[in-house]
Amino acid sequence: MSLKLCFIGAGNLATHLATTCSKAGLEIVQVYSRTEDSAKLLADKLNTAYTTQTSSLVNYADIYFVALKDSAVEQVLSGIEFGDKLVVHCSGSLPLNVLSRFAKNHGVFYSLQTFSKNRKVDFRKIPIFIEASSEENLQILKEIANTVSESVTVLNSEKRKSLHIAAVFACNFANHCYAMAAKYLETKDLPFEILRPLIMETASKAQEMHPKQAQTGPAIRFDENIINAHLNELTEMPDLQELYNSISKSIFAHHQKKQ
Amino acid sequence: MSLKLCFIGAGNLATHLATTCSKAGLEIVQVYSRTEDSAKLLADKLNTAYTTQTSSLVNYADIYFVALKDSAVEQVLSGIEFGDKLVVHCSGSLPLNVLSRFAKNHGVFYSLQTFSKNRKVDFRKIPIFIEASSEENLQILKEIANTVSESVTVLNSEKRKSLHIAAVFACNFANHCYAMAAKYLETKDLPFEILRPLIMETASKAQEMHPKQAQTGPAIRFDENIINAHLNELTEMPDLQELYNSISKSIFAHHQKKQ
Repeated sequence: MSLKLCFIGAGNLATHLATTCSKAGLEIVQVYSRTEDSAKLLADKLNTAYTTQTSSLVNYADIYFVALKDSAVEQVLSGIEFGDKLVVHCSGSLPLNVLSRFAKNHGVFYSLQTFSKNRKVDFRKIPIFIEASSEENLQILKEIANTVSESVTVLNSEKRKSLHIAAVFACNFANHCYAMAAKYLETKDLPFEILRPLIMETASKAQEMHPKQAQTGPAIRFDENIINAHLNELTEMPDLQELYNSISKSIFAHHQKKQ
Repeated sequence: MSLKLCFIGAGNLATHLATTCSKAGLEIVQVYSRTEDSAKLLADKLNTAYTTQTSSLVNYADIYFVALKDSAVEQVLSGIEFGDKLVVHCSGSLPLNVLSRFAKNHGVFYSLQTFSKNRKVDFRKIPIFIEASSEENLQILKEIANTVSESVTVLNSEKRKSLHIAAVFACNFANHCYAMAAKYLETKDLPFEILRPLIMETASKAQEMHPKQAQTGPAIRFDENIINAHLNELTEMPDLQELYNSISKSIFAHHQKKQ
């Protein structure tokens, strides 16, 4: 493939995706970001050009990857002339057709992963979900996706949105549970580090077991002795107490129902 | 060490701990469980004797490990004559002194991990927290703990209870987030398996980063477009909708506060 890519956006996702594409031999011809620091940082990593003005976007890229937060996509794209170039967004939640008024040829390239700056991820293991306005565009995205990942699936906008909701639970909410544990331990002068093997094993179990079968702890059978003692301990942290109560009730309800 | 151990309880924890002790060269002389099936199953694994009557417990073990659910401990131990033998419970929540009326020499051996039957765990990586009624008893527990794990810490009952609460958040509640994701995906005919790399990366990030710094997703800045769209999608699953709402608010509040 001798495709030329342009990245609109230079955040966590853009950084990981663009560097992965570049290493895989795809040519990144330009990076756009509203802030010069971000644009320059990513462009330097890729050894390519950058701009902070959409009016200065190159017109010779084959594909424009839009890796912006959802709420910025329409605003940033307004006024750009894409002609018949392929414009692709990377969002879990936005439907394919948000792009139809900007470009005839459009698509979606959603990487199901949590990206943080300065943390390497192995893109080959990241499931990628693609969708496009035509079979031809879909083939182009499939080729790019197969270049960077072992797991590529065609998925429509409706299912991708569902997947994104599930990902919020499995990733963002699970991580918040870690964060609440850390917050509580801090008040008790205990280090968060001691929970790390437990966190790793909990995730490892979910690689092989269904999480319902893997569930342990006092909430499954609503062990009131332990639960009430814990709620009592959390009196001075009402936010944690409320979460403890509502999640415990949800666990119990989930294990009461026949599966 | 030529210590003789007796296990009171034959559930997940007892099974993992007893087999680990046995492989490490400690002698398990008997297993007790209320149900014959459980008692026999574990005793056979250990190639040792079993009983379903506390009145038939051997009197020549050096240490009696009580690995029962919290609510059963006092009831099962009532009426057993332990003399000056060392009696040790394995609970995160029960204080050391619940054992004082049953045995002069007593202690706690808490393994901070989630155990499921038929799933192997590497005990050497499991942090163990010990406490005992005397320095001598503590030394005995320390020796046993060091035989099976690389991470052994002396911790009092108050701090152990705090640790257990944090573990409920980091493990039980995080796993429930996976379970809710799985439940939602089922209704959309999407397989839970596609979330596994994301779950693994979320836990892996927490091995190196503080979970507050690792947090991603729409709730940090309370992206109302995405959050409201997701809540709307969850209308037919009010239990998930409620959890989504309360955890999202908690994430936002946590990231508003100065750290």
